[in-house]
Amino acid sequence: MLRPRERETGRDRDRIVNLSDGIFAIAITLLVLDIKVPNIPEDLVTSELPAAMVSLWPNYLGYFLSFVSIAVFWTIHHSIFRPIRSYDRNLLYLNFLFLMLVAFVPFPTALLGEYGNHQLPVAIYAATLAVGRLLLTAIHWYSTRNERLLDEPQDPATVRFFLIRGLTIPAIFLLSIAISFFSVRAAIWTWFAMIAVDALVIHRRFR
Amino acid sequence: MLRPRERETGRDRDRIVNLSDGIFAIAITLLVLDIKVPNIPEDLVTSELPAAMVSLWPNYLGYFLSFVSIAVFWTIHHSIFRPIRSYDRNLLYLNFLFLMLVAFVPFPTALLGEYGNHQLPVAIYAATLAVGRLLLTAIHWYSTRNERLLDEPQDPATVRFFLIRGLTIPAIFLLSIAISFFSVRAAIWTWFAMIAVDALVIHRRFR
Amino acid sequence: MLRPRERETGRDRDRIVNLSDGIFAIAITLLVLDIKVPNIPEDLVTSELPAAMVSLWPNYLGYFLSFVSIAVFWTIHHSIFRPIRSYDRNLLYLNFLFLMLVAFVPFPTALLGEYGNHQLPVAIYAATLAVGRLLLTAIHWYSTRNERLLDEPQDPATVRFFLIRGLTIPAIFLLSIAISFFSVRAAIWTWFAMIAVDALVIHRRFR
Amino acid sequence: MLRPRERETGRDRDRIVNLSDGIFAIAITLLVLDIKVPNIPEDLVTSELPAAMVSLWPNYLGYFLSFVSIAVFWTIHHSIFRPIRSYDRNLLYLNFLFLMLVAFVPFPTALLGEYGNHQLPVAIYAATLAVGRLLLTAIHWYSTRNERLLDEPQDPATVRFFLIRGLTIPAIFLLSIAISFFSVRAAIWTWFAMIAVDALVIHRRFR
Repeated sequence: MLRPRERETGRDRDRIVNLSDGIFAIAITLLVLDIKVPNIPEDLVTSELPAAMVSLWPNYLGYFLSFVSIAVFWTIHHSIFRPIRSYDRNLLYLNFLFLMLVAFVPFPTALLGEYGNHQLPVAIYAATLAVGRLLLTAIHWYSTRNERLLDEPQDPATVRFFLIRGLTIPAIFLLSIAISFFSVRAAIWTWFAMIAVDALVIHRRFR
Repeated sequence: MLRPRERETGRDRDRIVNLSDGIFAIAITLLVLDIKVPNIPEDLVTSELPAAMVSLWPNYLGYFLSFVSIAVFWTIHHSIFRPIRSYDRNLLYLNFLFLMLVAFVPFPTALLGEYGNHQLPVAIYAATLAVGRLLLTAIHWYSTRNERLLDEPQDPATVRFFLIRGLTIPAIFLLSIAISFFSVRAAIWTWFAMIAVDALVIHRRFR
Repeated sequence: MLRPRERETGRDRDRIVNLSDGIFAIAITLLVLDIKVPNIPEDLVTSELPAAMVSLWPNYLGYFLSFVSIAVFWTIHHSIFRPIRSYDRNLLYLNFLFLMLVAFVPFPTALLGEYGNHQLPVAIYAATLAVGRLLLTAIHWYSTRNERLLDEPQDPATVRFFLIRGLTIPAIFLLSIAISFFSVRAAIWTWFAMIAVDALVIHRRFR
Repeated sequence: MLRPRERETGRDRDRIVNLSDGIFAIAITLLVLDIKVPNIPEDLVTSELPAAMVSLWPNYLGYFLSFVSIAVFWTIHHSIFRPIRSYDRNLLYLNFLFLMLVAFVPFPTALLGEYGNHQLPVAIYAATLAVGRLLLTAIHWYSTRNERLLDEPQDPATVRFFLIRGLTIPAIFLLSIAISFFSVRAAIWTWFAMIAVDALVIHRRFR
């Protein structure tokens, strides 16, 4: 049985990573179930299907956004767990809390696909991703604070850089909730702007 | 082909654990499909969506409770299988019986989400978790009784502690069924109280 | 790229097994989605839910039967692949054909759950399991005929025993289709009888 | 955290492959959910179910075609990643783009199952598979161009052969879109012809 502060190694850490990857893979693949085939009577298919396919654009957008978000979550999770060699109860709980959010993403995505031009679904979507990213930052912060969990000490400048990034991005998501009260479209554009700026910063940082 | 009492090693044991983890990951991620996007006509979304989102609370509760329950099942399963190095037919069958229950959890969860203020769904939910926990206790009991399946003999005091815990928790779930005949809410609160007390006991035990 | 008759080793074989296990895990977990929560108006729940839960018995039966069937498929697949160390295109194709059937099982199960007292669904269900078992027998036969795919030659008596078993069981499933024209219930009972007799034979064989 | 051009090894590469395999396994297993059990009143089941089962043929066809397509994608992905020992950001992004397409396949499959005798769904289906194949070709091209990602340099003749194949097949899918404007059936037959010719070419190449 797991004991507090007990350090586990090798295979045990792998089983946590495998379970996490399973949940990532399933959550990311379930997203497609929210794109429902339009229901059109047989004799109207030729005339109405093209417009019906186009009108599904909030669902395509939701699929794209959530796929990218979960892929980014996975990439960061992957990076955080790479140097981790052992774990304790707190890390296990934090990771489950984070996975609870990852597995939840299909619901706000479906909501966005159905009511994407309304304020509440946009706010719920932004809040979900903000909380997910904060939990990831918490896992990162916890694991780097407890060097006994790590292979080797991490470079403090890199840790600080990722901590700032891991707090700025949720802050922008929360800001987009404020924006959504004025303009739903502007809030959605904030997300795309953030993704682009983040990619630029990462690129410049590691040039 | 598998022979009774034949001992398997290494990779074989890993394949059982991998299949189990796959089923855990899928069952835990399917839970979100029970939170259905409310169906509201376009012109009423602004006025009615907030209340509709709030009225989904039994579904959020079900998602949370079942996610935590499966996560706890996974953590205990993980602990039980850590020292196991070989397996026999009985262990394989017991594990499949347990997985049949884990994969079933989304159904009582959906039932609880739909009819959470009624006695029968609460009783079915409690019974499912009780049986799941009992099967896990049976796997633990069987593996520790057959030392040839293990890496090294387990500490008897620890085995006894977890056996008692593994019988007390299903007993409380069964008790909550009795309580549900008087008050459905009280039965649900019993589960939360049990989770909290269990965490305390575990914490004190390993201080 | 894969070349015909090219022998792959270690990690490659593991990737096939992992993909197979993923498909097993998902197919077995999707079965629960066929047990739908009954739809009852709020004021009739107390009086009508118990009977509605009982009337779901063909769905519970389908869940149980298909879970056991896929678990048996997995156990045999596991046994067949244990001595396999390399693979070729034919083995890859046979395995995909078999997995196409495993992933299909939720559909005949849903059909059985919906129309379990009619002849056609019972026949389709039996045919699906018969074909699945035959493909598994084909994989076994192919791998033991090509010793270069194996770790070490297999005991001929054991190979013969499992070949006979792997042909008898599909034959009984096909027989149950004939029986289903006279009595649907008798056909379903044939399956249970077969499972019991098979367990007995296996037990006696390896005593 | 991932750094551009940073080379990762061993376990990291395995985690990408595992996530990919998880998405392959789930996408391929979700296909069955598009084959819906027909809804027939109890007293008409005997007379109407057989015809209803037959009328599901576009769904069976879609299941078969998409299962084969994803299985082919997996086989090629498997072959491309076999010699890959490290990865960089570009490879990670290309792989996620490809997986976004694999996870999307159930939607055009459902569309084909519902409106398989119309031009638009056939074109969308062909376009999805063409883009998926092109992304796979891009991954292959990128990995062989960056020898530091590979175990050992690849044979240039083989690389060229697979590049040509990896461009011809999407070209034929795009051609089938043009054909679909004249005859939907002819477009679908193009796919089967292509699969058969491809198998022949591969077989002759490696005789």
